[in-house]
Amino acid sequence: MGHTSARLGELARLVEGELDGPADKVVVGPATLDEAGANHITFAAEARYVAKVNASKAGAVIVGRDVEKLEVPTIRVQNPRLAWCQVLEHFAPARPEREGVHPSAVVGMDVKIGKGVWIGPHAVVGDRCRLGDRVVLDEHVVVGDDVLIGKGAHLYPHVTVYARTEIGRNVTIHAGSVLGCDGFGYVSVGKKHRKIPHIGNVVIGDDVEIGALVSVDRGVCGSTVIGRGSKVDNLVQIGHNVRVGEDCIIVAQTGVAGSAVLGDRVTLAGQSGVVGHLKVGSDTVLAARGVIARDTPAGSFVSGFPARPHRESMRVIAYMQKLPQMNETVATLQREIRELQDRLQRLEEERPATGEAR
Amino acid sequence: MGHTSARLGELARLVEGELDGPADKVVVGPATLDEAGANHITFAAEARYVAKVNASKAGAVIVGRDVEKLEVPTIRVQNPRLAWCQVLEHFAPARPEREGVHPSAVVGMDVKIGKGVWIGPHAVVGDRCRLGDRVVLDEHVVVGDDVLIGKGAHLYPHVTVYARTEIGRNVTIHAGSVLGCDGFGYVSVGKKHRKIPHIGNVVIGDDVEIGALVSVDRGVCGSTVIGRGSKVDNLVQIGHNVRVGEDCIIVAQTGVAGSAVLGDRVTLAGQSGVVGHLKVGSDTVLAARGVIARDTPAGSFVSGFPARPHRESMRVIAYMQKLPQMNETVATLQREIRELQDRLQRLEEERPATGEAR
Amino acid sequence: MGHTSARLGELARLVEGELDGPADKVVVGPATLDEAGANHITFAAEARYVAKVNASKAGAVIVGRDVEKLEVPTIRVQNPRLAWCQVLEHFAPARPEREGVHPSAVVGMDVKIGKGVWIGPHAVVGDRCRLGDRVVLDEHVVVGDDVLIGKGAHLYPHVTVYARTEIGRNVTIHAGSVLGCDGFGYVSVGKKHRKIPHIGNVVIGDDVEIGALVSVDRGVCGSTVIGRGSKVDNLVQIGHNVRVGEDCIIVAQTGVAGSAVLGDRVTLAGQSGVVGHLKVGSDTVLAARGVIARDTPAGSFVSGFPARPHRESMRVIAYMQKLPQMNETVATLQREIRELQDRLQRLEEERPATGEAR
Repeated sequence: MGHTSARLGELARLVEGELDGPADKVVVGPATLDEAGANHITFAAEARYVAKVNASKAGAVIVGRDVEKLEVPTIRVQNPRLAWCQVLEHFAPARPEREGVHPSAVVGMDVKIGKGVWIGPHAVVGDRCRLGDRVVLDEHVVVGDDVLIGKGAHLYPHVTVYARTEIGRNVTIHAGSVLGCDGFGYVSVGKKHRKIPHIGNVVIGDDVEIGALVSVDRGVCGSTVIGRGSKVDNLVQIGHNVRVGEDCIIVAQTGVAGSAVLGDRVTLAGQSGVVGHLKVGSDTVLAARGVIARDTPAGSFVSGFPARPHRESMRVIAYMQKLPQMNETVATLQREIRELQDRLQRLEEERPATGEAR
Repeated sequence: MGHTSARLGELARLVEGELDGPADKVVVGPATLDEAGANHITFAAEARYVAKVNASKAGAVIVGRDVEKLEVPTIRVQNPRLAWCQVLEHFAPARPEREGVHPSAVVGMDVKIGKGVWIGPHAVVGDRCRLGDRVVLDEHVVVGDDVLIGKGAHLYPHVTVYARTEIGRNVTIHAGSVLGCDGFGYVSVGKKHRKIPHIGNVVIGDDVEIGALVSVDRGVCGSTVIGRGSKVDNLVQIGHNVRVGEDCIIVAQTGVAGSAVLGDRVTLAGQSGVVGHLKVGSDTVLAARGVIARDTPAGSFVSGFPARPHRESMRVIAYMQKLPQMNETVATLQREIRELQDRLQRLEEERPATGEAR
Repeated sequence: MGHTSARLGELARLVEGELDGPADKVVVGPATLDEAGANHITFAAEARYVAKVNASKAGAVIVGRDVEKLEVPTIRVQNPRLAWCQVLEHFAPARPEREGVHPSAVVGMDVKIGKGVWIGPHAVVGDRCRLGDRVVLDEHVVVGDDVLIGKGAHLYPHVTVYARTEIGRNVTIHAGSVLGCDGFGYVSVGKKHRKIPHIGNVVIGDDVEIGALVSVDRGVCGSTVIGRGSKVDNLVQIGHNVRVGEDCIIVAQTGVAGSAVLGDRVTLAGQSGVVGHLKVGSDTVLAARGVIARDTPAGSFVSGFPARPHRESMRVIAYMQKLPQMNETVATLQREIRELQDRLQRLEEERPATGEAR
């Protein structure tokens, strides 16, 4: 972290790659293939991008083991995406090291604060909270009473954490997200809606990352849970008592309705949805815009609304596009049948009288 | 509120139920059927959940009047959901009683503040606002100039209320929501977009609850209105000059476009939408993901995009799934017709010459 | 701005219109056609609204040049929407003139602040930022380190701007929006997700307006760009390395996935989406709820998911609604063919033996 230049030899060692080029050539940072200049290193993980490398101005490129000789200095690796990630880490600006409690912050009573914690300007921490070592609460973070935050967690500006939420270690939560707000539950009494109290909480596992402007409702009773290692993109809604398993991927603007249970390594692509009270099997993949409306077995790949096996959905979509044509075909068949009926009737009328046959 | 235990007899009286079990048995709180232990009370409102009660570890259960004898202590009531709500209220943690203005809050000039109001850390209140009795402004709430907030309203952290908004009594607004931002209105002048000033405001009726991260645009002129008793879930967008009637339910991630008018008791399920300038009749229900694209009469139950009567939509979806099969049927019919045409032609050619018939 | 009354003659001059009515008649403000009283001016841009003018209580009305004589005082103009916009501007409440740094604000080191800047209560500005003349940072705005903000930009309450973001002149950003949060990028290593550092930034062009609760991810490396004059509505998600051209319109709850490139004057209607890494040609219009899933040529008008030319989509939707009927037609054809087959077989069996023909 924090480097502003590197020699190719150094980078090749970092990513455990094979350098085809001058080890002492210096690059000043990573750049996309389109934007890279002579002092930048880029990467090309797919053939269609590799094909563009020679025409680019990049000073060096990371590619897969099997890529043939290119005109620019090349680092060959097993997994170009991983190597790219490592190079980005090398050049990532160092986060300013801050420690202590900004004088404008408001910290409640009986709060336990670990080593190396930073509580930023105007942050508010409720009573009886516990913050593990190296927790960072950025500007304007609001943490309610009785909240636990594990070691190394980083809450970005304007995050709101309602009372009694539990946040694991090394969790990252981006700006403006809300953890632990009441779920949407009412009992209809006559024509009025009476609020169901939400006395549960939210539990976020270790290594979870949550994007900006995400809402996670607290449980009615019991917990809404996001399992270890899961990643949630921006503007996602997680309903009350949902249980997201481990290492799941939930892409932007998706909604998971109350009490749905997701297994491990489930992927919900962008703008998708899961109906409440369902079970989504581990390793299920839901394509963008899909809505899971009944339980899915483990390893499903589904799409559409209601979601079905992806191949079936694709076939249905393909046939939908052919509907105008199919409609025409049916109209033609109607005409042809009318014609056949006429011709047949004529033949029947013309045939010799064979009284006995009838 | 605030109880940490209760005798079953006490709870039966609270919910006006009939106790079948020991009146002095103590439970320490409510829990879901799956999670309830021997010291918890749970509920089962539907037959499929009642069927699981005997196998659960729950210490007591609330069910409907007509449920037969169970192996666990049982409270029978008219409306199990309502009774569950009352039990949750009994055990809900008491909200800390705070009153006054936190020293870090910033309050403008000529502000009228009722009795028992709490203005939390870093909250900001603009000039000439009026706050009714017992209003709670949590940490970091920002209220613009000339805002009215009715008795008992509770604004959670990071809520932004733009100038001239009017908020009714007992309104609840969850964290991060924005009331009164400009709507999305531009006049195209050549290829540029010229902003239409939004000089109206937002009016929120009594007993409304708004979730987290909701945006309600102010009127261009006149008001955007959310009627008494309506409930709005997280991440919902309400456009400029929309009028939501009373006791409506708007579920998460739904959008209502500008100048749409919703009657009373309208339900918009999750991730749904209403096109601008439409009238949605009272008691209309729009299913999840649906988009209302023309006026609906009162009492409609619609789904799909564009929304149609739900039964029709369901039929269309069912037939869509059968499209591959229908396509095959049509292909078969084509072949059969070709064959018929051939056979018929052969017959026609074979028939005796009957010159006069033609 | 800031007027509370105007004479019709004055307004006619303001909008360069022709007054048909008393020049000294006074109106106290604009109102919608439905809500206008005798002291209000309203407008009617379309024939169906013009038809309602005589029945309204409006004190005056703005209409197009070609509208015939009405019973209320009338201002005729080339572009009634533009004139309405000008009238609204005339009556818009003046924004309070504030200047300086509120004592509760926290401003970092080496910050350059232009003339007439206002940094409101509890706002936080990071180190080495540059704020142009007349920049307004409302209450609780958080600006990270090394951020540039151009002249006349206005950031509403609770906006979060991550480090190294660049914001152009006269940009408006509504409450709660987040610029520069990390994008959603992970490398799968085994079953775990390893975060891809996001070391790029966000660049917002001059005259851009961004609604409330919008998230714009920073680039992995390089920039996520929103081009000059583009307008973004509430609750929109813009992914990492997206490039939005100039004068685009992106309506509420839309998502643009990573690395997508939008040309100029692209319109994405409400709740729509663009798949990542695509090119959307200039002047493309995507209808509400549509999803662009492959490159579109300039000037496309597309809808549906996957988006297709709008007329095709409309035809497909029309035929979908007819599916139950088409299914019935096909069933009828099947029956008729069976019948034809039977009749034909009978004829064939009846024909005279013509051994030599076979």
